[in-house]
Amino acid sequence: MKIVPFEKYEGAGNDFIILDFFDHGELIDLNDQELIEKMCNRRYGIGADGLIALCRNNEYDFQMKYLNADGLFSTFCGNGSRCITMYAHRKWNRDSFRFLAADGQHESRVLNSETVKVKMKDINAFEVTNCGVFVDSGSPHLIHFVTDSFTYDVNKEGRKLRNEFSKEGANVNFIDSISTEEINIATYERGVENETLACGTGIAAAAYYSAIFNKLSGQQTIKVNAKGGALEVQMTIDGSRATDIWLTGPAKRVYSGFWG
Amino acid sequence: MKIVPFEKYEGAGNDFIILDFFDHGELIDLNDQELIEKMCNRRYGIGADGLIALCRNNEYDFQMKYLNADGLFSTFCGNGSRCITMYAHRKWNRDSFRFLAADGQHESRVLNSETVKVKMKDINAFEVTNCGVFVDSGSPHLIHFVTDSFTYDVNKEGRKLRNEFSKEGANVNFIDSISTEEINIATYERGVENETLACGTGIAAAAYYSAIFNKLSGQQTIKVNAKGGALEVQMTIDGSRATDIWLTGPAKRVYSGFWG
Repeated sequence: MKIVPFEKYEGAGNDFIILDFFDHGELIDLNDQELIEKMCNRRYGIGADGLIALCRNNEYDFQMKYLNADGLFSTFCGNGSRCITMYAHRKWNRDSFRFLAADGQHESRVLNSETVKVKMKDINAFEVTNCGVFVDSGSPHLIHFVTDSFTYDVNKEGRKLRNEFSKEGANVNFIDSISTEEINIATYERGVENETLACGTGIAAAAYYSAIFNKLSGQQTIKVNAKGGALEVQMTIDGSRATDIWLTGPAKRVYSGFWG
Repeated sequence: MKIVPFEKYEGAGNDFIILDFFDHGELIDLNDQELIEKMCNRRYGIGADGLIALCRNNEYDFQMKYLNADGLFSTFCGNGSRCITMYAHRKWNRDSFRFLAADGQHESRVLNSETVKVKMKDINAFEVTNCGVFVDSGSPHLIHFVTDSFTYDVNKEGRKLRNEFSKEGANVNFIDSISTEEINIATYERGVENETLACGTGIAAAAYYSAIFNKLSGQQTIKVNAKGGALEVQMTIDGSRATDIWLTGPAKRVYSGFWG
């Protein structure tokens, strides 16, 4: 078996295997679902919520390819994009990036050695469905207000709603308000098929819906406390539309390794 | 921070960080509970059920120092001893070892590239307590017969019994019989404070008690199916005493890494 160098990163407890295809070429076949699922397995593999490949793209600083722990390509991953930005920062000693991901173009900035912000795609509207409020923030998210997110049975309820919603499923976020500018959140992630300690696109979607629910408008900053750490979402709200959405939070290198 | 090389091993899904103090000296301070707890954390660290240091000892091939995921030194770890034996086999290209662990002297043999057996300490007796049958197989174990180990709420019931038993606590095993020679098992491990996919000393203790319960005597082999894989326990039974107890099962290298 080929030996594959990797780095392990985490952003608010949302953890990722990072592979550098930029200089090393395709270290593994990203279509090998079984291999990636095994690498992400916490007992038999490296263990992670997902795997990110840093790839070349002529029009951007880099392209981010993201796969969930189930070994399948997935939609945008907010915390993963903050982690790959920190990796790129350490690799190239630059603070500011333009990159391509599954949902299109993004910008990101390293604020200090442990903090990264990433620009998310605009959110145009929310949708009220039988499974909860639906928001697309780069990945599909259902949002539910509950009494206490941190004690809620996220896996049980999330797993149920994730499947009820559609064949492709959605991530499911349970939130409670501390104030109009601060919420708590717990998220069940499809593809990981488990609660994660934080989910970046879920945090953006929830901050957006909480602001809309509280009739906020103009430039707003919402603090979002996930089990794995606190993040901030800045955005400009006009009616049900949010633009200039930036997700800010921790992103840290944990260790490096060799698989195989 | 110093860079610490490590290897990751698993035996039936019971997974360990292995540090080689034999050639490299004390790579970390094993009394640094916070560091070891962080290294064993599955989101913010490497992630493992425990950490093993391969150490020098003048009277043995090596000494195995074992710490649980809570960062504290613990009693004997059966699957961990099979993993450190596979590590030693790859390091020295030998198949047979005599080593020292927390509960005394052990022998181990590599049967093939994925299978290791280790000799456990003798079991003299079982004890009937208010928290279940108690067996010391190198680590303290409570044993409960249930209808179906694999669907049982191991974390809920295990956590309760683990604390009720004594201040130091015990591991808690839930078993069901397939035949007099085969059982299923699920184990809650103190120190990990969670269900693990397999627990070597728990498997030995449960195989012993199942054999005694079924009035077996003489040389016996009990197959034990854990969620993480199947193991075998061979032993010689005389009344309530079992000697020449060997635990056989898979032990695999997963990857190598550098912490820090």
